[in-house]
Amino acid sequence: MISGLVKRNTYQDSVNLMLLSTKLTEMEGVRKVSIMMGTPANKDIFRNTGMYSAEFDLANPNDICISVDTDSPDMLKSISEKLEEFISDLSSKSSATQLKKAKSLKGALKKIEDPNLALVSIPGEYVFDEGKKLLNENMNLFIFSDNMDFCEEKELKELARDKGLIVMGPDCGTGIISGVPLAFANVVNKGNIGIVGASGTGIQEVSSIISRLGGGISHAMGIGGRDLSEEIGGISAKIALDYLANDKGTEVIVFISKPPAEAVKNSIVEKLKVIGKTAVALFLGEEEKGPEDNLHYAATLEDTANLAFYLSRKKSVYKGRVKELEERLDLIRLNQRQKSVHGYYGGGTLAGEAKLILKKHINKPGCKIIDFGDDEYTKGRPHPMIDPGTRIDAIKGLKDNGEVAVVIFDNVIGYGSSTDMAGSLGPHIKEVLEYKRKNGRDIIFIASVCGTEDDVQVYSKQVEELEKAGVTVMSTNAQCAKLAHEIMEYLDGDWKHEESYSGLLGEDLRVINVGLESFGKTLYELDVNLVQYNWTPTAGGNKDLQRMLQKLENI
Amino acid sequence: MISGLVKRNTYQDSVNLMLLSTKLTEMEGVRKVSIMMGTPANKDIFRNTGMYSAEFDLANPNDICISVDTDSPDMLKSISEKLEEFISDLSSKSSATQLKKAKSLKGALKKIEDPNLALVSIPGEYVFDEGKKLLNENMNLFIFSDNMDFCEEKELKELARDKGLIVMGPDCGTGIISGVPLAFANVVNKGNIGIVGASGTGIQEVSSIISRLGGGISHAMGIGGRDLSEEIGGISAKIALDYLANDKGTEVIVFISKPPAEAVKNSIVEKLKVIGKTAVALFLGEEEKGPEDNLHYAATLEDTANLAFYLSRKKSVYKGRVKELEERLDLIRLNQRQKSVHGYYGGGTLAGEAKLILKKHINKPGCKIIDFGDDEYTKGRPHPMIDPGTRIDAIKGLKDNGEVAVVIFDNVIGYGSSTDMAGSLGPHIKEVLEYKRKNGRDIIFIASVCGTEDDVQVYSKQVEELEKAGVTVMSTNAQCAKLAHEIMEYLDGDWKHEESYSGLLGEDLRVINVGLESFGKTLYELDVNLVQYNWTPTAGGNKDLQRMLQKLENI
Repeated sequence: MISGLVKRNTYQDSVNLMLLSTKLTEMEGVRKVSIMMGTPANKDIFRNTGMYSAEFDLANPNDICISVDTDSPDMLKSISEKLEEFISDLSSKSSATQLKKAKSLKGALKKIEDPNLALVSIPGEYVFDEGKKLLNENMNLFIFSDNMDFCEEKELKELARDKGLIVMGPDCGTGIISGVPLAFANVVNKGNIGIVGASGTGIQEVSSIISRLGGGISHAMGIGGRDLSEEIGGISAKIALDYLANDKGTEVIVFISKPPAEAVKNSIVEKLKVIGKTAVALFLGEEEKGPEDNLHYAATLEDTANLAFYLSRKKSVYKGRVKELEERLDLIRLNQRQKSVHGYYGGGTLAGEAKLILKKHINKPGCKIIDFGDDEYTKGRPHPMIDPGTRIDAIKGLKDNGEVAVVIFDNVIGYGSSTDMAGSLGPHIKEVLEYKRKNGRDIIFIASVCGTEDDVQVYSKQVEELEKAGVTVMSTNAQCAKLAHEIMEYLDGDWKHEESYSGLLGEDLRVINVGLESFGKTLYELDVNLVQYNWTPTAGGNKDLQRMLQKLENI
Repeated sequence: MISGLVKRNTYQDSVNLMLLSTKLTEMEGVRKVSIMMGTPANKDIFRNTGMYSAEFDLANPNDICISVDTDSPDMLKSISEKLEEFISDLSSKSSATQLKKAKSLKGALKKIEDPNLALVSIPGEYVFDEGKKLLNENMNLFIFSDNMDFCEEKELKELARDKGLIVMGPDCGTGIISGVPLAFANVVNKGNIGIVGASGTGIQEVSSIISRLGGGISHAMGIGGRDLSEEIGGISAKIALDYLANDKGTEVIVFISKPPAEAVKNSIVEKLKVIGKTAVALFLGEEEKGPEDNLHYAATLEDTANLAFYLSRKKSVYKGRVKELEERLDLIRLNQRQKSVHGYYGGGTLAGEAKLILKKHINKPGCKIIDFGDDEYTKGRPHPMIDPGTRIDAIKGLKDNGEVAVVIFDNVIGYGSSTDMAGSLGPHIKEVLEYKRKNGRDIIFIASVCGTEDDVQVYSKQVEELEKAGVTVMSTNAQCAKLAHEIMEYLDGDWKHEESYSGLLGEDLRVINVGLESFGKTLYELDVNLVQYNWTPTAGGNKDLQRMLQKLENI
């Protein structure tokens, strides 16, 4: 038997309704339960699923409607109690966080200065009116909501374009702006790959694979599943590509979508070709083809990630790594004599690779890359991959050396190699660093470990041991040498601070979250400057009435 | 003061001498110690380093020569005691392992049937004679020893070529044959990338990076630092490429070297172009250029690894994964009705990707890929990335389904997603598998986790949870779908068992280790069929006399 219950004027977002639904489903005697706000569309769903109750006739979008299939006559009473308990729980939990809150846009705007992004997750039918207001306050929009009207979507996007803003979405499931995850997103490494994608899990899969490989993401922007339709014409896609083209932290641009309308696709491809950066395009389902100048094509999401990772690693080392060291480098730079790089290698080919990458610097006075596996160092003693002695001597010698700024070295593990090279070199590096720091100086040690987790020395343990000693550990020898090169440029004054695009991507995020409070909480916990705008449908959810009220307000 | 000590007829390899050296250096009163076998070359080193003692005048290559710098008159006596202790320790340790041993090649050949590889690490001056004997017994050679004569190297390599064998080295620091690490090598994943490289750490760096990325190595063959010289002409390089070209498990071939002699390089490049497989070449230090048909060029060792990984992943899933499932698949194949694939997806784009990769099969009766995020499944209930309900129902339904052989699904983690989807689906999968197995049946569940280690659900924990439930977890959704495709081919009888080259790469290794016992022990612990041939210089190390003796033996 279907029974209905209506709780007036208690608007809840869909996540809370789901939590409530889970709670009620667990109750003894409940066969099935369905909970929605009393919008006309939702009432239709109740009817179509045989869960409608006459109680719902007068319900409006601000009212919680609960439909239960049960034989127990007392059930509605128990449910009503549970519901009250749930709502009071919610409000006590909610007031426990320091999340700044507002009940109107005006209220929200008073609590945050110059917001640059609004996250919108209210029911789709109300997005257009709310979105226009937000755009007019010069905020970029990330619209999680779906079921928006085509014309409304286009109008919002055109308005954004005219104002130099972007609308991500609607139906935008995921995004990452300056490392901040929006909606359904993963915690990925920061890096030099920017992503534009239509839908959610495509971006999630590509960004996660890149991150697991060791690469990183600058920004990932969703544009919504219909942006590349002929009607919308890729308005947001092109703006997103412009954003990434102007962002100095983005060196490789990835574009992911299902095959779009032919004319739209051609304009996207043309744009990608003149974007001035390496680009990877995936039109899922199309035949793959060879690269056209800067534009590479991929066949699957994995393929896209692997290709972007490969191309991104061809670039110089991720600039973020130099920035991490900036304070130490500025100390070193104060001492104008301290300008050399030393390399202490066990592996001959690795030493050779470092020499090539550092070729601009290694012929300067005081600079040298030593292959301690060369005959002159191994006569009568074991190879430096086994015996740390010669390298320990070199490290000790740094105490009295006032010129060396950077030291790179390798740690080749595996069968035959020392069982703990990091443990042998580490204490001596630590001692040098402590000595230098006592004297107000510093040296940057950079190393990579060549080997795997299954080697007896265990890759991650050797990395950890080196990091404990104060070494900056890079994932490969080439990355070590590239970082050393960037540092030498920095010390020479040739290294440029990279200025990002002055828009959204170059700024700290200042967010108004309109809708799902769980999205807001995530950002709050990540220390993002945020106001939670607890939107509820005004005027009983009647849109005409809402617009009239809006006009009256604006007088 | 320099004192000398000679211990006659106790040949020790260089690793043992190093261990001894470490022990003696630790003794109180010892300023410096140098230990070598009494070869003419070693005596020169003693002289050049000021460590020569008149005691060494009559020493031969079978005698341990110890030179000590000390002021203590009793030191030689203490050292002599330590030495005896060390030697008796060694022999007791050595007899403790079940390693098969021989003191001559003839003895070794009696203890192993049809050996196909000899690992040679005796002093370079003795390699030629020993190597010829080994080649004549139809063994491929891996020569770790260095200091070989150019003409001798060439003669050995030509002899090998004429016999359909290969000489890896001399001065070959690393190799991996059929997953077995030789000399200095890392424990890497098995996979479809074959490597040919001149020297040691180049191969180690590339194979380790590939393995850390999640790719795998079929074989890695070192050819020695001089193979690409004009004198040697790349004899071994070309044979190694032929070996890999004929090896069905190798789909991408990597070639690493310093820039070789121009003519040799041209012949290698020509060979790589007609090899019939995707190839990546690194001539370290040369300008990079665009791909020429199947041949791609890389710029650094890391770049080589990333490019090879990317290209290797474009191939169908690594066949080894199907072989791992072979027993279960053969059980499934017995039931001729069980031929369908189901996909249970939360991510829409992931479902779309699976459909594309499985396009040959999904339109067959009983096959379907369901996107549970589609409107028809989410009406009135949360998204399947949050709510496992719809997928649990689908999994439960498999109990009564006798047609489904393979099920693929996704597990998208990160912000917004279920906190433990693997924990929700896992028990139901386990139950289905237990039910099927009780009835003598099986189903293959394949999944990937989309997300990272830093996501709140933790990538590796979700993988572990799924594996515990009996799911085969692949690294990406594309790999899942590719594996499902291969399984469908297998069940249709279209999947070919791949026959490898009948030579070294296709066979189990049967090794004679000539020299460093530590190399032998490593292989012994890896369960490689092996005889340790404890080579010592006969005839007091006099090569002319050795050859005469050899001739007399052969009469």
